[in-house]
Amino acid sequence: MSKVKIDNNAFTYPMPMTLVGAMVGDKPNFLAVAWVTRVNFEPPMIAVALGTTHHTNPGIHDTKAFSVNIPGVDLMEKTDYCGIVSGKKADKASLFTVFKGEVTGAPMIEECRLCMECRLVQTVALAADELFIGEIVGAYADAGCLTDGKPDVVKLDPFTLTMPDNGYWRIGERVGQAWSAGRRLNV
Amino acid sequence: MSKVKIDNNAFTYPMPMTLVGAMVGDKPNFLAVAWVTRVNFEPPMIAVALGTTHHTNPGIHDTKAFSVNIPGVDLMEKTDYCGIVSGKKADKASLFTVFKGEVTGAPMIEECRLCMECRLVQTVALAADELFIGEIVGAYADAGCLTDGKPDVVKLDPFTLTMPDNGYWRIGERVGQAWSAGRRLNV
Repeated sequence: MSKVKIDNNAFTYPMPMTLVGAMVGDKPNFLAVAWVTRVNFEPPMIAVALGTTHHTNPGIHDTKAFSVNIPGVDLMEKTDYCGIVSGKKADKASLFTVFKGEVTGAPMIEECRLCMECRLVQTVALAADELFIGEIVGAYADAGCLTDGKPDVVKLDPFTLTMPDNGYWRIGERVGQAWSAGRRLNV
Repeated sequence: MSKVKIDNNAFTYPMPMTLVGAMVGDKPNFLAVAWVTRVNFEPPMIAVALGTTHHTNPGIHDTKAFSVNIPGVDLMEKTDYCGIVSGKKADKASLFTVFKGEVTGAPMIEECRLCMECRLVQTVALAADELFIGEIVGAYADAGCLTDGKPDVVKLDPFTLTMPDNGYWRIGERVGQAWSAGRRLNV
């Protein structure tokens, strides 16, 4: 093993930047979240990890609903703002045009080309975070970001996060076809 | 709301490609996983979602350990192979030089520039997947992929996955500084 040990506080590369929304009291709120992943295929489920002190958490607990919105590079500054200022101090929803999910009423962002409405199915308490697991009960996209009816990452123009260097990165070139590129190997 | 409804089986964009490793019986095994995210800051925890029928799952349950390895574009074909062929049918570890974590013995991949060794702390049963939550107890990097002692995403040259179009994508240009780019906004 020729490797060096680094800080155990390590990360995956890169992390997808999203805006997670919830009603907090009677107001929509959004925060920037990169600790997010799909976790179940059918029914489709997604998990987001949020520090327990965030303004959004009680809203998710109360309404049993949240949204995951994919901002494009055009929303990078607003997304970042939603990561550095708390909903306790600012009305971050005023940055966006807000619409509500048809099933849960979770608030979503018109300016994001893809928005997913989630019904909370499970909460996992961790040391400092809560993991909110939701079923995707509605997915809403701009027609212009679709190719053959599916979201097209080039048209979505999302951005990713790296830590601990704290960089935002655009998607680069397409380098292969998944679940096919390795077929020629034979072990 | 000017959006169109799409299939609820929607995804985040993009998803980081990793190779997850575990000892299964007395043999190391690796599978391709993009449903992975950090979930707790201190102690550092990471979660991976695996369909319950995978060959790897019993190994994680038995050993209470797994690894998350970051493959570069140079390993795209081998990574893809580890996503389309089961460890029940092939000795996928023979594709790589394997080393073991110092704390848990979890198998890791020398050819991946960054490897994280995890001790299983919790398993969450979902409808069709299991979510394995582990504490990162060792992080191992190639010295050549570090800048100022931190992993450098350009040197790591990882790749990401998009679904349902099943594409692999390289990292693109750096477009901003996280937790700073939005400071000029004032709501």
